[in-house]
Amino acid sequence: MQTFNPPVRTLMGPGPSDVYPRVLEALSRPTIGHLDPAFIRMMDELKELLQYAFQTRNAMTMPVSAPGSDGMETCFVNLVEPGDKVIVCQNGVFGGRMKENVERCGGIAVMVEDSWGDAIDINKLEDALKAHDDARIVAMVHAETSTGAQSDVATLVKLAHQHDCLTIVDTVTSLGGTPVKVDEWGIDAIYSGSQKCLSCTPGIAPVSFNERALEKIRDRQTKVQSWFMDLNLVMGYWGEGAKRAYHHTAPINALYALHEALLILNEEGLEEAWARHRKNHLALRAGLEAMGLSFIVKEPDRLPQLNAVTIPAGVDDASVRSRLLNEYNLEIGAGLGALAGKVWRIGLMGHASRAENILLCVGALESVLGDMGAEINTGVALPAMQKALA
Amino acid sequence: MQTFNPPVRTLMGPGPSDVYPRVLEALSRPTIGHLDPAFIRMMDELKELLQYAFQTRNAMTMPVSAPGSDGMETCFVNLVEPGDKVIVCQNGVFGGRMKENVERCGGIAVMVEDSWGDAIDINKLEDALKAHDDARIVAMVHAETSTGAQSDVATLVKLAHQHDCLTIVDTVTSLGGTPVKVDEWGIDAIYSGSQKCLSCTPGIAPVSFNERALEKIRDRQTKVQSWFMDLNLVMGYWGEGAKRAYHHTAPINALYALHEALLILNEEGLEEAWARHRKNHLALRAGLEAMGLSFIVKEPDRLPQLNAVTIPAGVDDASVRSRLLNEYNLEIGAGLGALAGKVWRIGLMGHASRAENILLCVGALESVLGDMGAEINTGVALPAMQKALA
Repeated sequence: MQTFNPPVRTLMGPGPSDVYPRVLEALSRPTIGHLDPAFIRMMDELKELLQYAFQTRNAMTMPVSAPGSDGMETCFVNLVEPGDKVIVCQNGVFGGRMKENVERCGGIAVMVEDSWGDAIDINKLEDALKAHDDARIVAMVHAETSTGAQSDVATLVKLAHQHDCLTIVDTVTSLGGTPVKVDEWGIDAIYSGSQKCLSCTPGIAPVSFNERALEKIRDRQTKVQSWFMDLNLVMGYWGEGAKRAYHHTAPINALYALHEALLILNEEGLEEAWARHRKNHLALRAGLEAMGLSFIVKEPDRLPQLNAVTIPAGVDDASVRSRLLNEYNLEIGAGLGALAGKVWRIGLMGHASRAENILLCVGALESVLGDMGAEINTGVALPAMQKALA
Repeated sequence: MQTFNPPVRTLMGPGPSDVYPRVLEALSRPTIGHLDPAFIRMMDELKELLQYAFQTRNAMTMPVSAPGSDGMETCFVNLVEPGDKVIVCQNGVFGGRMKENVERCGGIAVMVEDSWGDAIDINKLEDALKAHDDARIVAMVHAETSTGAQSDVATLVKLAHQHDCLTIVDTVTSLGGTPVKVDEWGIDAIYSGSQKCLSCTPGIAPVSFNERALEKIRDRQTKVQSWFMDLNLVMGYWGEGAKRAYHHTAPINALYALHEALLILNEEGLEEAWARHRKNHLALRAGLEAMGLSFIVKEPDRLPQLNAVTIPAGVDDASVRSRLLNEYNLEIGAGLGALAGKVWRIGLMGHASRAENILLCVGALESVLGDMGAEINTGVALPAMQKALA
């Protein structure tokens, strides 16, 4: 057995995305202790950088020492008590995972379902809130990674608050790619992941909780069922004015990496990052549509960073992805759940949202699909992209 | 705000330990996808390397994508069902954390307590097993990081099995430093951490479960309360013969690092690593005792990798540690829990278990303590260590 030398890929799936070289370099800096004063100063900066990314002044803004799925669970185990009724808006895989979380916390999940690929329907949520006036929480996915649909979180949260519900919002795929405004939208609890539009390595989940959410946690009648995720304990290490007392050993180097990724976002500016994601999405779309591929999400609801397109009839999904990987070192994503085998998910996330990636992806797809005899338009994608990128 | 350039420290606390340079280098290699065939081959190697480290053939041997505390919780949430009676042997901080885990899973914890610094008393466990013949599980810490005491896990596990109990064993601080023999000792569920004697960066928890443990998980009447830690789901990605289906996004680069750390252990050989930890412990001990410091753990129960010594009377704990850090870039550990302010914990873990670290640590301690007017013997530690290292 030998040291593992990974191939160099271009990562245009649903995450992990291409990681910034500066982030990889930061990752390999000397490890120091989790209570070292130098590390504690870095933690303070990291919190501030996360507040900027989330557009919030929430003191309880921190990185969970585990992947995005654990960020989700951190929100649910802290906020949901046995017997709590939670309205879950589902329009893809991750709403289903929220339901699992609610039930495993002893809560009652009321599902509001929309078709996969659609945004969350505001009227359906309103009906559910009226029908369940004992609901305590509304949970929703801002950017559904399984479909590429974006929902109107600002309006949904407002509605939830009118019915006295707290809100939990999944922004794993949106943070850094499209606007996420925690304070302006009034989001009570939010989680994300390091490996999407932040272009950091996978494994860390940024979260933020406002005062209303913390109040519910403080008022709990029962202990949080997870020791590792119990914010009452984690706050002793990460909390505002905390003594930075040992709770668990923080993943030191992974936090150097997140600090660097957030610094890059800060240097570029959020507005500029959002504009870049939008512009590059339009160029990718121009190329894919010229080739004859179609998006599954209606135009106004499309996420610029996650492009789900229908696999042309008669084309073998796995063979195409395998050829892209082997011949071009290019990773695009398969469909997930109900969409497995039906769509490809092409990510333009963070550092992967670049002109060169778009030309590579569309060019390689055209070559492979053409070679396999798929019915696509050839020779027209490149000029269409050039025009959009100009 | 600027990029974070950590100081270069020598890490001789209770972990993280000094990280192997090869591990830091592996960490910064290009990120690839969690379903990339190249990554999946690496996962298979990683499992095999972990089996060697744990000395087991358990198919369910894998790294949890989170710190050691979450590895602990993974064992408890999967094995403990509401109402299950669990005997927890406590002789330090981490037995207390096990109690929290049992109770948060709805289990009933029966505590068998020993003094901090003592090994677990086999007779006390036997009495508890006789008094509680409805107990289902016995949980114990092999190497108590808070005190530096090692317990006789082989005998304790045998006893538990005689009373039809499964066993959960914490080897966070022992794995790679002193013998851990999962199959020979019959351990049913075990967890460890990446950042101690494996000298990898913090953030990953190796775990292993035998067939008996998996049977209990399969026979559960209730769902595992954590979605993220539910082995029934995680096995779809990490399990034997699994399709490596998406569960959560694995912390890719952190797993490169663990692969490299385990490769180094494999190259050195377990027996050789254990012997090195033992030899260096004796040298450190020679220096510290010559200086007049005393160990809190009785000689036969001492962990070579975690040396807890009493702080000399009249000496200010924090000032000494602060001076070691600022003047020598040396981190040693403070006391934890009941031992806070009373002991220092000096780690000789993995890559930190080297002759040069011992001379630095004892030399720096002698300088700082001497300068502060503490009652220690000066000028005798160095020759004592030289003799032990010869």
